[in-house]
Amino acid sequence: MVRVGVILSGCGVYDGAEIHESVLTLLALSRAGAEVVCMAPNVDQLHVVNHLTGEVTGETRNVLTESARIARGEIEDVAEVSADDLDALVMPGGFGAAKNLCDFAVAGSDAKVQPDVEKLVTAMLKAKKPIAALCIAPATLAAICRDAGIRSSVTIGNAADAAAGIEGMGGKHLTCPVDEFRVDEEHRLITTPAYMLAGNIDEAATGIEKTIAELLRMAR
Amino acid sequence: MVRVGVILSGCGVYDGAEIHESVLTLLALSRAGAEVVCMAPNVDQLHVVNHLTGEVTGETRNVLTESARIARGEIEDVAEVSADDLDALVMPGGFGAAKNLCDFAVAGSDAKVQPDVEKLVTAMLKAKKPIAALCIAPATLAAICRDAGIRSSVTIGNAADAAAGIEGMGGKHLTCPVDEFRVDEEHRLITTPAYMLAGNIDEAATGIEKTIAELLRMAR
Repeated sequence: MVRVGVILSGCGVYDGAEIHESVLTLLALSRAGAEVVCMAPNVDQLHVVNHLTGEVTGETRNVLTESARIARGEIEDVAEVSADDLDALVMPGGFGAAKNLCDFAVAGSDAKVQPDVEKLVTAMLKAKKPIAALCIAPATLAAICRDAGIRSSVTIGNAADAAAGIEGMGGKHLTCPVDEFRVDEEHRLITTPAYMLAGNIDEAATGIEKTIAELLRMAR
Repeated sequence: MVRVGVILSGCGVYDGAEIHESVLTLLALSRAGAEVVCMAPNVDQLHVVNHLTGEVTGETRNVLTESARIARGEIEDVAEVSADDLDALVMPGGFGAAKNLCDFAVAGSDAKVQPDVEKLVTAMLKAKKPIAALCIAPATLAAICRDAGIRSSVTIGNAADAAAGIEGMGGKHLTCPVDEFRVDEEHRLITTPAYMLAGNIDEAATGIEKTIAELLRMAR
């Protein structure tokens, strides 16, 4: 059985992991018979956003604790997970990927990556184990590749500033329709735009299902 | 196009809407071409549960605001939605259905229903528009039927106390495997056990997909 890590970044598109993308990832993995290990960094969120109004609130929430909502309590601190125990990795999107896993949302190409996330993903890269990233999460992946001296090739949707951010980190931005994915064969990275482009959950699901199928094909 | 309301009850299995069930509902509706109206009551949650530890925290969170995380901000106050504008209704599960939409989790058969939810669902019942309820949400539905003088027939999984709670409200408990659903033809109710029985997201998805397909068949 293939064992796949899923790095969550909170619970909600504006300050955490995008919930639809995360659940669609878990569904695709489960339907393919993969064993799933959900994980998240044990740190406070950059901030909390009221998803009804879009306003930042004064609350403090923990990324691991909020991610546990998506994982129904079955989740590990990413610091406790070894790349040796995983065959593949997925990073769903949502602003949490660019706010809590790294600070791309505020620092752009100068993004710093959360150390526990950086350690695990770098170990996966070095072991040549396949890594999928959805939506804006390829920015986190590109930042880790930058730090590892790797020129990654990833999707991030069609927004010029996001694409420029990837290029600013020494990565190559790949254009891609919402219902497809792109592969960086050399570094075994699979990326898809998901809600960077999707107009509804059905569109996001199609790209994510194909991405997970390719990830598992590469992992086997 | 069929217009379907989805009543959410927060964001997280232990104090809100079950996230997988909610997203699987939205996916099935979107794939069938239905128009979706997400909604939730604008009230505080009964409590907030840390999903990592299972402990109740001292926080206060609003059901509508937290439900907006699942709906990506596209959500209505249930008090503002008229049954005249809907063809069908879905109530995903999670303890939020039994803690925030009604208080079945603490009051059992004496459960009181949140007034805005009761008003909308009762209007749907009277208009003979089909209503689906997943997981523990049939308890809320049975409480509304009790108040409306209707003897409902619904699933709620195999837990004896939950089934007794349904019977205590004058409802009839229907046994049902996780990958199927049951129909109360007279009152046009479709119910499925989902995570009351499901061991994984794949199992929950199969029952929910069939339930939504039946709901849409009845609505057309």
